[in-house]
Amino acid sequence: MAIRYPNGKKFVTSQTKSTKPRNANRINTYSNRGMTLEDDINQSNAFYVESGIAVIHKKPTPVQIVDVHYPKRSAAVIKEAYFKQASTTDYNGVYNGHYIDFEAKETKNKTSFPLQNFHLHQITHMKQVLAQKGICFVLLRFSHTDEVYLVDAIHLITRYEDQSNRKSIPKQEIESFGTKVPLGIAPRLDYLRIVREVYF
Amino acid sequence: MAIRYPNGKKFVTSQTKSTKPRNANRINTYSNRGMTLEDDINQSNAFYVESGIAVIHKKPTPVQIVDVHYPKRSAAVIKEAYFKQASTTDYNGVYNGHYIDFEAKETKNKTSFPLQNFHLHQITHMKQVLAQKGICFVLLRFSHTDEVYLVDAIHLITRYEDQSNRKSIPKQEIESFGTKVPLGIAPRLDYLRIVREVYF
Repeated sequence: MAIRYPNGKKFVTSQTKSTKPRNANRINTYSNRGMTLEDDINQSNAFYVESGIAVIHKKPTPVQIVDVHYPKRSAAVIKEAYFKQASTTDYNGVYNGHYIDFEAKETKNKTSFPLQNFHLHQITHMKQVLAQKGICFVLLRFSHTDEVYLVDAIHLITRYEDQSNRKSIPKQEIESFGTKVPLGIAPRLDYLRIVREVYF
Repeated sequence: MAIRYPNGKKFVTSQTKSTKPRNANRINTYSNRGMTLEDDINQSNAFYVESGIAVIHKKPTPVQIVDVHYPKRSAAVIKEAYFKQASTTDYNGVYNGHYIDFEAKETKNKTSFPLQNFHLHQITHMKQVLAQKGICFVLLRFSHTDEVYLVDAIHLITRYEDQSNRKSIPKQEIESFGTKVPLGIAPRLDYLRIVREVYF
């Protein structure tokens, strides 16, 4: 008998959940681990830095600070602030002399990746990075199947700028343009292995 | 008769201010412009991006968000947050395929640059960047003379790790290890010109 441990999600039978049966041997899934794509990238980046492989960090969330209190004998407290839209991608750094720059996004869609996940500032930034001969890509995760693809920025830019027909990138295209990033343990998401394959 | 326009600073006579008389023809000084080193770098980076020369940005200030309110029909408000210590340098980006990473600091000292302006996390980060073959340096400004020097990270790291004798870098050393960055208009601080001279 299958035991359904609570995972914080509404229970759906496997019939309604997916047309394909899930591989029962696959234990290394995101839903089991309760991890987000960002967690996995941060863990991988920490692994890369500690191992001397690369120096890549997530940029802090941009915040517009309006009011700060300075209490005596304790740390300054920000009392009013607002989230600002990022003008660049979230991750950048250096890998053996190469400038690396990327954005990471997830979707619950099964057949395509919605372009509304990206905004114009980021697309503009990616074009600027490519013009400076930086390595620039996106990590796209399909959460239902735990698949992560590395897709070069040029494909995203092209799709973003031609939204006359569709507002998303078909998964089929991502499979053909992109490269799947295998899930592991250390690092959890070895995207630099794919960077080596694709760019070097 | 000299007219002393208010500049937000306590008035001191030129005799007490400096042993050397200031050059009366020099109008392009920081004190006259009311600009900080950060302003000048941000303006220069904007110029570099707009001109297609390089893509270099200041990272957002890292903030630990504790409490956020979500009012109806308006933007989320951060109600409690704290400043976190940065684990990297403030500026990074890409310049014609090269990874660029630096920190900028000012001092009111006249004869040396205090090492307390830097903290261990940043020094560690600089070592990691150098190991990855990134271009890594500091921009050091002596505010009394409006002089800005570009000094390769290796010199700072060496001095930081040998603080047995002194807790600062003598200005003489900065003049000999570093290169002065000229002040201009567009960009205000053309540090990439010095990067070309020093590294290419």
